[in-house]
Amino acid sequence: MKTVEVPLDDRSYPINIGSGILDDGSMIQRHIPGNKVLIVTNETIAPLYLERCYAALRQGDSRLQIEHVVLPDGEQYKSLDVLQKVWDKALEARLDRNATFVALGGGVIGDMTGFAAAAYQRGVHFIQVPTTVMAMVDSSVGGKTGVNHPLGKNMIGAFYQPRVVQIDVETLSTLPKRELASGLSEIVKYGLIRDPQLFAWLEQNMDKLLARDAAAMTYAIERSCVNKSEVVSADEREGGVRATLNLGHTFGHAMESSQGYGVWLHGEAVAAGMVMAADMSLRLGWIEEDILHRTIALLEMAELPTKPPQGMTVADFKGFMAVDKKVLDGKLRLILLKGPLGNCDVTGDFDPAVLEQTLEAFCH
Amino acid sequence: MKTVEVPLDDRSYPINIGSGILDDGSMIQRHIPGNKVLIVTNETIAPLYLERCYAALRQGDSRLQIEHVVLPDGEQYKSLDVLQKVWDKALEARLDRNATFVALGGGVIGDMTGFAAAAYQRGVHFIQVPTTVMAMVDSSVGGKTGVNHPLGKNMIGAFYQPRVVQIDVETLSTLPKRELASGLSEIVKYGLIRDPQLFAWLEQNMDKLLARDAAAMTYAIERSCVNKSEVVSADEREGGVRATLNLGHTFGHAMESSQGYGVWLHGEAVAAGMVMAADMSLRLGWIEEDILHRTIALLEMAELPTKPPQGMTVADFKGFMAVDKKVLDGKLRLILLKGPLGNCDVTGDFDPAVLEQTLEAFCH
Repeated sequence: MKTVEVPLDDRSYPINIGSGILDDGSMIQRHIPGNKVLIVTNETIAPLYLERCYAALRQGDSRLQIEHVVLPDGEQYKSLDVLQKVWDKALEARLDRNATFVALGGGVIGDMTGFAAAAYQRGVHFIQVPTTVMAMVDSSVGGKTGVNHPLGKNMIGAFYQPRVVQIDVETLSTLPKRELASGLSEIVKYGLIRDPQLFAWLEQNMDKLLARDAAAMTYAIERSCVNKSEVVSADEREGGVRATLNLGHTFGHAMESSQGYGVWLHGEAVAAGMVMAADMSLRLGWIEEDILHRTIALLEMAELPTKPPQGMTVADFKGFMAVDKKVLDGKLRLILLKGPLGNCDVTGDFDPAVLEQTLEAFCH
Repeated sequence: MKTVEVPLDDRSYPINIGSGILDDGSMIQRHIPGNKVLIVTNETIAPLYLERCYAALRQGDSRLQIEHVVLPDGEQYKSLDVLQKVWDKALEARLDRNATFVALGGGVIGDMTGFAAAAYQRGVHFIQVPTTVMAMVDSSVGGKTGVNHPLGKNMIGAFYQPRVVQIDVETLSTLPKRELASGLSEIVKYGLIRDPQLFAWLEQNMDKLLARDAAAMTYAIERSCVNKSEVVSADEREGGVRATLNLGHTFGHAMESSQGYGVWLHGEAVAAGMVMAADMSLRLGWIEEDILHRTIALLEMAELPTKPPQGMTVADFKGFMAVDKKVLDGKLRLILLKGPLGNCDVTGDFDPAVLEQTLEAFCH
């Protein structure tokens, strides 16, 4: 088992990564201060892991009062309406301010449960048990929580830290292949923005990850969590360097928004978005052509898309990019690659004509 | 003009209190970092003060993009459904992460706007322009924001601090008498829990406050803000002493819940709740009888209720008190008076039979 510590002063927490650690009750229970727990999960994960989660929480006759709520599965249910079910359940079960909410599921469950915990009675405790690669390497680190709004993704939410993240890589055995690849997209991202060694390792080991090899998966998740943790610790509220974690996301969010949430997976949109960011970086003369080619090749190994959805227009991109959270006072900032592999910049200081060229090259 | 500084490290902010200061644009504008503002107000306040608020924000050719949203007026609209209108408007107007939400109105508007700001894009700037005594002396200090849930008051929310609170006592000229008295109830509370000089001053000057005398009002609001600010600075997240600010609130919330929100005003319920807390304190032998009598007399001067609503039963109280936020892991804690005037205690360490006696004495 590996542990990555996320150092955030009094809100620091450990990420435990290993095989079978979902069943280690004491490792989870020590992070539950009160005696009431609400497990939030979805219809797909509940039949697979809810019982094991209960068993772990009850281990050693813990006497915890454990409740659960099962939400529908999918990005399209990441809404305030569905979130209300969590608060309804918590209030019906009379959970108090010392309760702990446990997110058992993927990124959507993690984001929703985190925001539910942040806002329930103005903040209760929160634990994450992610069951997708995406949730393990992205949503579980950094405290970003929230729900979507019809006019934009993750528009309503909070920065809220869990007390522990318990990552059992065995739970990935039940993950559909497309979702696996979607998570790998974010791992590629860490390579691109700051970890060229990880990028090179991925080029050599992508097949092992696709085969869900536990050791390879543990390594890739650990490296991703370390990378994200380093960035988040330096910039918890996203004033500066944290924005680099959004490489490909501005383009990607536009793709997700234009299709309606849930058609493409988040990591799929980010994959195509990263290629667009790399393309733009190349056109600006900020990177060598080689980086663009290696990025496309690596994403193709994972069978991830490297172009936006068919039919998406330049106007679609522009419309959705204007409401992106990275728009500060009307000026569009993008995360672009700059320099050797593993370097990038968050900047609004580029020739808008080059953005136009990239959009035109990828849209038909 | 008086200014009370609320010291909270990097989230410290000033409360300005004076006559006519709603029109001082520069005093407000200096706390707006971006160039986009959303004024949140209600149907009662909009015709009275919205135009003046716009004028102040535009003063000196500020070039701010100013939007507004008008919510229905009343505690019964302090819901997540109504709150959504704020987020809808913000997204339709494409407000970004550097936007500022201005709460123009009473406590409901302040609480809702604060939570809307806390959760919009995970946190935008927030300014309060309170127009009721209650909002001036209670909601505007301490960062408690949120909305009600059918199963409990203020159950969904956040701790979120404004950048400035601009209190124009002239706006109280349009405040209905019942609402004025409701706010005075909270001022009496500061006297009871920690400021015996203020309590004695109120006994001498209640008539001036009821006549909305600007100087008396400025003094009472300033003293209240200083009291609350001292308590909140010592205990921002309500681990300990901050709970004393809830004197009368556990009983009061039960009254509000049992009737449905909006029938009794918050301060009215708190007034009756404080009398019940004083009664219980006397039965426990923790205070002299004199304190109970002076409390009732002072509240009666303001024509505030000193008993719960007719028809409310002991069972009603017990049912609603069990979901109160002050219930920690199943143990009911109350704020009770203890010692000379101006002293109190937050405790679960009392004979439950005495609570029963108080409930029975006040219910029929």
